[in-house]
Amino acid sequence: MSKYAFGVDVGGTSVKMGLFDTEGHLLDKWEIPTVKDNKGASILPDVGRSIRAKMEEKDIREEELAGVGIGVPGPMDDQGTLLGGAVNLGWESFNIPEAMSAYINVPVKAANDANAAAYGEMWQGGGKGYGSMVAVTLGTGVGGGIVVNGRLLTGAFGAGGEIGHIHLEDNETEPCNCGNSGCLEQYTSATGIVRLARRYLEKYDGPTMLRRDYLSAKTVFDAVKAGDSAAIEIAEQFGDYLGKGLGMVSAVVNPEVFVIGGGVSKAGEILLSYVEPCFRKYAFGKCKETKFALAKLGNDAGIYGAAALILL
Amino acid sequence: MSKYAFGVDVGGTSVKMGLFDTEGHLLDKWEIPTVKDNKGASILPDVGRSIRAKMEEKDIREEELAGVGIGVPGPMDDQGTLLGGAVNLGWESFNIPEAMSAYINVPVKAANDANAAAYGEMWQGGGKGYGSMVAVTLGTGVGGGIVVNGRLLTGAFGAGGEIGHIHLEDNETEPCNCGNSGCLEQYTSATGIVRLARRYLEKYDGPTMLRRDYLSAKTVFDAVKAGDSAAIEIAEQFGDYLGKGLGMVSAVVNPEVFVIGGGVSKAGEILLSYVEPCFRKYAFGKCKETKFALAKLGNDAGIYGAAALILL
Repeated sequence: MSKYAFGVDVGGTSVKMGLFDTEGHLLDKWEIPTVKDNKGASILPDVGRSIRAKMEEKDIREEELAGVGIGVPGPMDDQGTLLGGAVNLGWESFNIPEAMSAYINVPVKAANDANAAAYGEMWQGGGKGYGSMVAVTLGTGVGGGIVVNGRLLTGAFGAGGEIGHIHLEDNETEPCNCGNSGCLEQYTSATGIVRLARRYLEKYDGPTMLRRDYLSAKTVFDAVKAGDSAAIEIAEQFGDYLGKGLGMVSAVVNPEVFVIGGGVSKAGEILLSYVEPCFRKYAFGKCKETKFALAKLGNDAGIYGAAALILL
Repeated sequence: MSKYAFGVDVGGTSVKMGLFDTEGHLLDKWEIPTVKDNKGASILPDVGRSIRAKMEEKDIREEELAGVGIGVPGPMDDQGTLLGGAVNLGWESFNIPEAMSAYINVPVKAANDANAAAYGEMWQGGGKGYGSMVAVTLGTGVGGGIVVNGRLLTGAFGAGGEIGHIHLEDNETEPCNCGNSGCLEQYTSATGIVRLARRYLEKYDGPTMLRRDYLSAKTVFDAVKAGDSAAIEIAEQFGDYLGKGLGMVSAVVNPEVFVIGGGVSKAGEILLSYVEPCFRKYAFGKCKETKFALAKLGNDAGIYGAAALILL
């Protein structure tokens, strides 16, 4: 009977790994470096070796293992085939479970890392107990992961949940990293909040704690908490953009809950207080009742979700 | 062995009904009036009677019947329970398959009528051969139906695919029927196109075939086909709004294909020629490759989709 699963989150710098029991407890976690030489050819063998070493250490036999789930930073189909490779790893397109079978003889499943993180939050984090959710990651960029009826929505080209690239602003002059302009990400990511703050302060000469040469999402929300009126107006702009964007998302997939994570979400509940009222303004009918929660698993969401690919 | 299924599309004026074989051929179709007296209490018994009469006429025994699918104009969960009733029928909230079991002794499934129509188009219409699609119905309003991995996405409150109420325009002064303002529906439904035309003509005094006192989506697209420059500019506005809205949808669910139906789509391929370039401008990365097709089943989409609830 299977008792364990491994969750693996392959990043550009390190590979995070976790050992879980089948009830979803994280029993152990560790990292190995991501070796990107030679088009990342040693990453999967390194993962396999590390898993086998852990099995030996913990005296776990192969038949006790339900499988290995792997999250990878690239668009992927439901079968775990990369659609266009994973540029940050040097990988081209291939089927990950198939490739991994050379290194370990248990079931392997793979998913995009942002989707895996969403799945993890649904399993053991901010979305626990919900059957349908949209995870929103406010980091350097804005990512999303959609779970419908307990399953990840990957999309035809692996672009399901790419909500950071919803077009929101016709009058934007700076381009988004994706090549378009006016994307949600340009106003609600960590860098997007700095953009809003910079633009606000260019036209503002009243008193404020914010300094133009030292702006970050954290300094903005710290100033909000201290009652700084300029920071509050910047947070209102942020909330309007994110509320409007999530309002659109709710009219498409109508989730039970939005789970907000990523570095920006470390601001805490105050962040939601700027987003939720705007969301309710723009959302359709009953969707106004959609719940909001903060993500709970932080950087471990990826390994949780990877294990959930196997255990759910 | 089951050989047949019935597809039922309950509308505010009439109930459309179809007899299908299990390969998806429509063998017979007919209508009965929708009797809305007494909170629509006789609608389901009438449907049951009509099905039994058709079975007698065609000499179909109950054991040859795979089941009856029913589309209803109201938000519904995956189990066929109305969430908030069906106002156009006078119905309150109840479970339709359960209620229908009093009148016929075969499996019954139910879905929202717009979702059922989308499912029909995927089964035997413009979306045939695709596993994931978004059906867009441009009628009096704008409806949507989303199919992911061959299954309807109904949403937590039955509002999955309510893409007509995506917020697109901050500067709108007229309210949408939903109570918000600036919804996609306000610019791309039949009435929305008339709104765009009316506004355009208020500021325009050049030559045009369009007459302010006789505007419809049809007169606008007829004028487009005749090369009328004012009508072409109105169609460009329409295309920009719809392309932008569907660009957002593709960043959320990333379907393989958009299938455009409803009365407005009778304009034909020329309609797509105004939507597709705008869509590609706003869509994210690989989503720009999403295909577009016209719906094929017209008013029969609902009965096809209702039967598909049983047969797929």
